[in-house]
Amino acid sequence: MNAHGTAVLDLNADLGEGFGRWRLTDDDALLTVVTSANVACGFHAGDPSTMRQVCERAAGRGVRIGAQVSYRDLAGFGRRAMDVPPDELADEITYQVGALRVFARAAGADVAYVKPHGALYNRTVTDAEQAAAVVAGVVRAGGALPVLGLPGSRLHEAAAEAGLPVVGEAFADRAYTAAGTLVPRRTPGAVVLDPDAVVARSVRMAREAAVTALTGEEVPVRARSLCLHGDTPGAADLARRVRAALEAAGVRLEAFA
Amino acid sequence: MNAHGTAVLDLNADLGEGFGRWRLTDDDALLTVVTSANVACGFHAGDPSTMRQVCERAAGRGVRIGAQVSYRDLAGFGRRAMDVPPDELADEITYQVGALRVFARAAGADVAYVKPHGALYNRTVTDAEQAAAVVAGVVRAGGALPVLGLPGSRLHEAAAEAGLPVVGEAFADRAYTAAGTLVPRRTPGAVVLDPDAVVARSVRMAREAAVTALTGEEVPVRARSLCLHGDTPGAADLARRVRAALEAAGVRLEAFA
Amino acid sequence: MNAHGTAVLDLNADLGEGFGRWRLTDDDALLTVVTSANVACGFHAGDPSTMRQVCERAAGRGVRIGAQVSYRDLAGFGRRAMDVPPDELADEITYQVGALRVFARAAGADVAYVKPHGALYNRTVTDAEQAAAVVAGVVRAGGALPVLGLPGSRLHEAAAEAGLPVVGEAFADRAYTAAGTLVPRRTPGAVVLDPDAVVARSVRMAREAAVTALTGEEVPVRARSLCLHGDTPGAADLARRVRAALEAAGVRLEAFA
Amino acid sequence: MNAHGTAVLDLNADLGEGFGRWRLTDDDALLTVVTSANVACGFHAGDPSTMRQVCERAAGRGVRIGAQVSYRDLAGFGRRAMDVPPDELADEITYQVGALRVFARAAGADVAYVKPHGALYNRTVTDAEQAAAVVAGVVRAGGALPVLGLPGSRLHEAAAEAGLPVVGEAFADRAYTAAGTLVPRRTPGAVVLDPDAVVARSVRMAREAAVTALTGEEVPVRARSLCLHGDTPGAADLARRVRAALEAAGVRLEAFA
Repeated sequence: MNAHGTAVLDLNADLGEGFGRWRLTDDDALLTVVTSANVACGFHAGDPSTMRQVCERAAGRGVRIGAQVSYRDLAGFGRRAMDVPPDELADEITYQVGALRVFARAAGADVAYVKPHGALYNRTVTDAEQAAAVVAGVVRAGGALPVLGLPGSRLHEAAAEAGLPVVGEAFADRAYTAAGTLVPRRTPGAVVLDPDAVVARSVRMAREAAVTALTGEEVPVRARSLCLHGDTPGAADLARRVRAALEAAGVRLEAFA
Repeated sequence: MNAHGTAVLDLNADLGEGFGRWRLTDDDALLTVVTSANVACGFHAGDPSTMRQVCERAAGRGVRIGAQVSYRDLAGFGRRAMDVPPDELADEITYQVGALRVFARAAGADVAYVKPHGALYNRTVTDAEQAAAVVAGVVRAGGALPVLGLPGSRLHEAAAEAGLPVVGEAFADRAYTAAGTLVPRRTPGAVVLDPDAVVARSVRMAREAAVTALTGEEVPVRARSLCLHGDTPGAADLARRVRAALEAAGVRLEAFA
Repeated sequence: MNAHGTAVLDLNADLGEGFGRWRLTDDDALLTVVTSANVACGFHAGDPSTMRQVCERAAGRGVRIGAQVSYRDLAGFGRRAMDVPPDELADEITYQVGALRVFARAAGADVAYVKPHGALYNRTVTDAEQAAAVVAGVVRAGGALPVLGLPGSRLHEAAAEAGLPVVGEAFADRAYTAAGTLVPRRTPGAVVLDPDAVVARSVRMAREAAVTALTGEEVPVRARSLCLHGDTPGAADLARRVRAALEAAGVRLEAFA
Repeated sequence: MNAHGTAVLDLNADLGEGFGRWRLTDDDALLTVVTSANVACGFHAGDPSTMRQVCERAAGRGVRIGAQVSYRDLAGFGRRAMDVPPDELADEITYQVGALRVFARAAGADVAYVKPHGALYNRTVTDAEQAAAVVAGVVRAGGALPVLGLPGSRLHEAAAEAGLPVVGEAFADRAYTAAGTLVPRRTPGAVVLDPDAVVARSVRMAREAAVTALTGEEVPVRARSLCLHGDTPGAADLARRVRAALEAAGVRLEAFA
């Protein structure tokens, strides 16, 4: 809630996750929903032409552009954790931010934040060394970019230590533990499949900063941003419903950066 | 010659042309010789860590950093001409400039110019469509970067039309035709192998803006930059000799950008 | 027509053209239609797991497996002609055939033929040097594999010279010139968009070995195989209709290898 | 020792570890030394032309050809452990064996064994899941290929369970623990740098099947193969010295496959 009692929330989603001939995300649909676009930078997905187009369209709509940085792994879509030496990982992050920045700026905008993708996101929740490497890469890229990630993650700790703004996100379609962490994907019930439930949880997260854990407890969820998914059939429709419900509930949708 | 009768010349060479475990160019040696470093940006060679290191070392020595842009072709080292659609090619150029720029700026310098590599260099000598695409990509990258290339090339025509500065280069180790163009590599005598001849030609190009063609004619060669090669055994030594001879002849070695 | 007056035709389509997370072709649907599957081998598309699955399913249905060989160009989906030196190109072809063969054999089948993909297909229609390189690569792979391609192409000439069987294919959805060649894609009317027309042309090609040229002339089209497309929405449905119409017209659908 | 009291040893080394323009291993020199060549298959190194040439030369000298399979990681030279799902990993192994096999057979030989490279080698020493995946990939490739690896590794356990022959190797330039395992590379003294010591250890491993541990104990080392390194300056010379010393000591050098 801000000073006037209005909940303020950012909506982020992954965009531009095609490569060459292949398409994955419904970028045009998602750009009508989100306030922040996590744009693939070429390492797990994202060719230069796609990056340019997404930047142009995002800039045209006032949607913030974030660098969705990843391990170098097109074959695995960045979903396979890799033991990359920290120095190399940092440099790979810097490279990706730079590559996206030139397109963002050409579109009259800029890279406004960084969010790791897939296995790198998951690994830097707990791996302090890789978390520090990602942060080092972001720092070297300049601009003191905010880091969007999981509240309480090693990544956020490292970013805060380095003086970078940290922005926490929540997941309306993921079950939470009583401790407020995400239920691992392999656990039954880890993903909330009922669209109505996803919508209801989104509104409650925004209005009450709370969610009901998988085990029934009420747990606080303080997040400035809500992550929507756009790579499955029906995902764009669900994202639209979430946005409409949040607006109907008086939540102000506003980018954080 | 400048107003004071002193010849001014830039020396450029390709650097950072390794990839991961593989090394090719003797970067440290070349950085003591050249005034401009054409840095590989990841498409034909050049991983992020190599790019960072070369930028740091070049910046530390005051050597200018140029983006050595290429077709996306690690397997072929950018030496295979490709029919890339112009829009895609332009975006690939922009991407590479952006990726290098972030490292150049982190090192306290900037990308100061662009030079195409290998097959893209050769093709844009005569292919107006690809030349225009490269220029469009450079323009989109911002900064009105000078384009280093072959005098009279389509690339230079396109760059000039777009308002980009053009900088011509000469090759002391390549034979010239009576028309002042390069003798194709397949022709016997196309490459000057005798180091003494290379050194002598370098000095004459700088002092007299002339070279003797393979067929014996004297032809003018007006170039602000001289391209040195650094990817063969003994290349760094020859580069050092060329530099020493130019300095001994009173040529002022100075970057163009 | 065979000795008994029955037309015999093979139906081929490109399969397995995804890569990692990305999917393109509706492989399961196409495998119910075609008698020969052109399987991507990893250079323009096709990861190992997709290759294995397509081979297993094709083998299970008695569909022949062909190596759909390509330039090494994931980013361009093999649609950008490349000046690959002949020796390298030959070796790249051999590599792809070998990589597919191990999966075909593990599935109890074998690679039964070779068909170039995209830009390599188009280029080897007229480029004798690259055509010879592809054939050299196929010969080195062993097994004297038939080469599926355009009748009259340089590729077929080179294959015949090398003693490889050649198999010609026709395209029901492409316009023909009066000379019996394909109308270039850029020409208006080059692609037959009306599904009914595609079906009718398929049947006529099979029964009468003829097609009406874009300019009105009747031209002979002798092809042992008909190429169907499977990478566009509705393509699998159209392929099913073509197959049903051919069967209704008494055409015997049978692989050539 | 065999029945006649003669020690029999295989010498293996990694070959063909270049990629395109880049070279790493001195293949011609190593082929005069080793009895088994671990040939890179394109995933961490090894382009098709290099694979063909190494196969031809190895076959010409009677050197056995092994598939040096790796994670898909050109940028990291296969030295970064990756959490590849077992099914995908198995298929990647099969693909690599198939790709090398076609060149080996074209050269009149065959793939005679499999050895994982780099991070995959190290990980499958202890990771039973990935070890089983590698073995599954080898089994699917057919031919019941022997697996060359570290004695006691999970990889060898999985291979033996699957009915594949296992062949153990030793390292003359690596320090051993009192338990007979390799001292981790980070530990001081882990790598034996003195060439004379490497030569002496090689002979003792072959003649006495023993080595002195870093901590002074005598430990048994039973290995049918000795791994030589060829990717550092002077490595080929040291390999030659080891071979000469082994021959002088009456050790019979003979491939295991």
